[in-house]
Amino acid sequence: MVDKKFEQYVEDNANRFAKDVMRLVSQPSVSARREGIEECAALTEKLLQEIGAETRILKDAGFAPLVYGEIKSTKSSKTILFYNHYDVQPEEPLELWQSPPFKPEVRDGRIYGRGAADDKGELVSRLKLIETYMKVHGEPPCNVKFCFEGEEEVGSVHLAEYVSKNAELFKSDAVFWEFGEIEEDGTPDVALGMKGMIYLEFVMSALDADAHSSYAAVLPSAPWRLVRMLSHIKDDNERILVPGWYDAVETLDEADLGVLEEQSFDGQGFLQAHGSRSFLPGMTPAQAKKALVQRPTANIAGIWAGYTGPGSKTVLPKEIHCKMDFRLVPRQDPEDLLRKLRSHLDSKGFGDVKIEVESMEPAARTSFKDKLAQSAVQAGQKVWGKKPTVKLSEAGTGPLYVFTRGYRASTVVMGVSGTDAGLHAPNENLRLDYLKKGIVWFAETIDQYLA
Amino acid sequence: MVDKKFEQYVEDNANRFAKDVMRLVSQPSVSARREGIEECAALTEKLLQEIGAETRILKDAGFAPLVYGEIKSTKSSKTILFYNHYDVQPEEPLELWQSPPFKPEVRDGRIYGRGAADDKGELVSRLKLIETYMKVHGEPPCNVKFCFEGEEEVGSVHLAEYVSKNAELFKSDAVFWEFGEIEEDGTPDVALGMKGMIYLEFVMSALDADAHSSYAAVLPSAPWRLVRMLSHIKDDNERILVPGWYDAVETLDEADLGVLEEQSFDGQGFLQAHGSRSFLPGMTPAQAKKALVQRPTANIAGIWAGYTGPGSKTVLPKEIHCKMDFRLVPRQDPEDLLRKLRSHLDSKGFGDVKIEVESMEPAARTSFKDKLAQSAVQAGQKVWGKKPTVKLSEAGTGPLYVFTRGYRASTVVMGVSGTDAGLHAPNENLRLDYLKKGIVWFAETIDQYLA
Repeated sequence: MVDKKFEQYVEDNANRFAKDVMRLVSQPSVSARREGIEECAALTEKLLQEIGAETRILKDAGFAPLVYGEIKSTKSSKTILFYNHYDVQPEEPLELWQSPPFKPEVRDGRIYGRGAADDKGELVSRLKLIETYMKVHGEPPCNVKFCFEGEEEVGSVHLAEYVSKNAELFKSDAVFWEFGEIEEDGTPDVALGMKGMIYLEFVMSALDADAHSSYAAVLPSAPWRLVRMLSHIKDDNERILVPGWYDAVETLDEADLGVLEEQSFDGQGFLQAHGSRSFLPGMTPAQAKKALVQRPTANIAGIWAGYTGPGSKTVLPKEIHCKMDFRLVPRQDPEDLLRKLRSHLDSKGFGDVKIEVESMEPAARTSFKDKLAQSAVQAGQKVWGKKPTVKLSEAGTGPLYVFTRGYRASTVVMGVSGTDAGLHAPNENLRLDYLKKGIVWFAETIDQYLA
Repeated sequence: MVDKKFEQYVEDNANRFAKDVMRLVSQPSVSARREGIEECAALTEKLLQEIGAETRILKDAGFAPLVYGEIKSTKSSKTILFYNHYDVQPEEPLELWQSPPFKPEVRDGRIYGRGAADDKGELVSRLKLIETYMKVHGEPPCNVKFCFEGEEEVGSVHLAEYVSKNAELFKSDAVFWEFGEIEEDGTPDVALGMKGMIYLEFVMSALDADAHSSYAAVLPSAPWRLVRMLSHIKDDNERILVPGWYDAVETLDEADLGVLEEQSFDGQGFLQAHGSRSFLPGMTPAQAKKALVQRPTANIAGIWAGYTGPGSKTVLPKEIHCKMDFRLVPRQDPEDLLRKLRSHLDSKGFGDVKIEVESMEPAARTSFKDKLAQSAVQAGQKVWGKKPTVKLSEAGTGPLYVFTRGYRASTVVMGVSGTDAGLHAPNENLRLDYLKKGIVWFAETIDQYLA
């Protein structure tokens, strides 16, 4: 139970908290351009030190230092880890910003600037949460760790490497993920996981050079061979045909099914938002809601071969490329599945297709029955006065698994950004009332979790 | 039987013939750039008038005038039509030419210049053939017609329209096609037809805009739908699955089979030339030889959707495009087949796929038993002293059908260009000895045909 003193401290210091968000936003840190990364890492470390954390900079992988912080507690043996990132998306298109993206400005109770929400506002909310505990109670309610990376916006390419190289350092019982949304009416969202993914490119070659298409009468066609190969990957009913693909997939437990049932889902609105007339053939909105959480996918993200210009060119293409992303659900092991895919294609006569793997990430998800999940939801109801929207899993993918795979830590995706925060867009912003209330929500969640 | 006087006239006037080739080459006529087309049409008409032809310019379709010529004969009621074109391919890359492409030059017994062979050299050979008849015998041995178009290198887009609008004008009993090769050892090639073709583009749409690929769990995928649709077009054994596709295909008669049998075919050399390790699965070289002539094809010439750049982008593409060319054999009616394809796809649940037809041309082929074919072969043996290489059909496609469909004219593809003439390439050239001998060969063929 968060006490009055805690809430009062947040209230009294809210303007200073906002200034720290603006300090961080003022330091550009565009990882796509490798701009301001070192400087922003140093500032992030300074902010950690200002709340009393012991810090450490890891920089033996990638181009961006990983900023680590830690504060021990005598009150609990448990450890909570906060994962955030100090890098931001590029600010373009500049002309659509009302104020300069790296000169943050407060208007109508919001901080405007690149990273105000994603993820500098979120990052500062975690720092100020712990600062408040330190100031009000002299220490945090349990051990806390901070993992602030600088390559999130370019795919967190080295995060898994950092964590596996420093396994002990990143050990925790609970992980607060880097983002989370507050709906416009003040309803907080709580998500409990993310899907995994294998992203790969197939390259099928048949000839040394493009041939005149009249020779299609006698020469092998790479595009046709790929089309045939794809028909061995997924059938007409959307079932992935690789033997064993679904072996590790678990059915949802009753608690999870209950969450799904309760979750409102505006099927027609979803379709309109994504410019589709219908879901997959035969799929009801209720099935769609579940599929977003629990269905492994095999998506063709890109395909190209031969002549793609206007008019006609009669060519038998020498090769074809096909990019696919396979979304995974918990317990599916990407490396195991990749082996199964390879041997399935071999067995169907496609031993010659090259598979270039771009990335592999397992899924991660915490059960709704987990104490952390329950605490976040109950605390949400209490602090926001609204029943939180619970999502078992985001439909998307992120490196949540990095912190949960070996450690079996509980995870929760919750944050302080509004649904209109303009992530990755011009006029990105953070609502200051959400920042304050979010900090109290985090504290209430932690207090209930540790109770 | 060509007489001595005929041969002597060709011999005596060969240099003047060459000069007329050079006159025509000197007038650029690049249809792709619409450059010099009117001027070259006028010069072509002048050359026709110089041999005594009545001429007519048709210019109510397309951008290039069609130059028509005619000379009547009292000797036979039969009519021979010569189809050629006065336009040429672009001359690039300029730096690879030894002499300027439009300033023709004679070196080592060859005229070098753009169009020297394709098709200005061929066109002049037909003119000089008839000039020789006129000078030696006072008239041609039968009625002759000339159809010289100016859009061949951009697809003969308006040829069919011109011919169907002026049906009586283009009526003939026999057609000499615009090209033909003489092998390096002086063996003449005789081809008896060309395949037809439907060239089209499928456009399959599923969404109004690209979606994040995480939504592939619930939203329809245009690429997957196209892949499934393609599996209804051709099976794993290369059989086209559209009902009725093969209904009109006739088996080769004994004469044609005999020609195939006799035709030498270096399977290994063919594969090497086209950078392939093998023919289609299970196909022998003898089967390949036949397939090039008689197999209808369904080729994927181009396909594209979604993200085709480096690395990964997780996108569910809103649409996919697929260009296909279907090569046809004699008696297959493109319009009928297109209707069958459409209704087949509709019946398989793909009524939504758009089919944009780029071009449709039926095949055309003359039987080896035909008198024109027999005459070309026997005359080839006599004039060149080598047994001609007979091809029942080119594997490629051309508008031969335009002159044969309604009229049932016999056709023969024979010419005066060497296999090293560099068609469409730098240093295109015409061997002067082949020009002379070719004219005699044409005359011998016509004399035997009319006998």
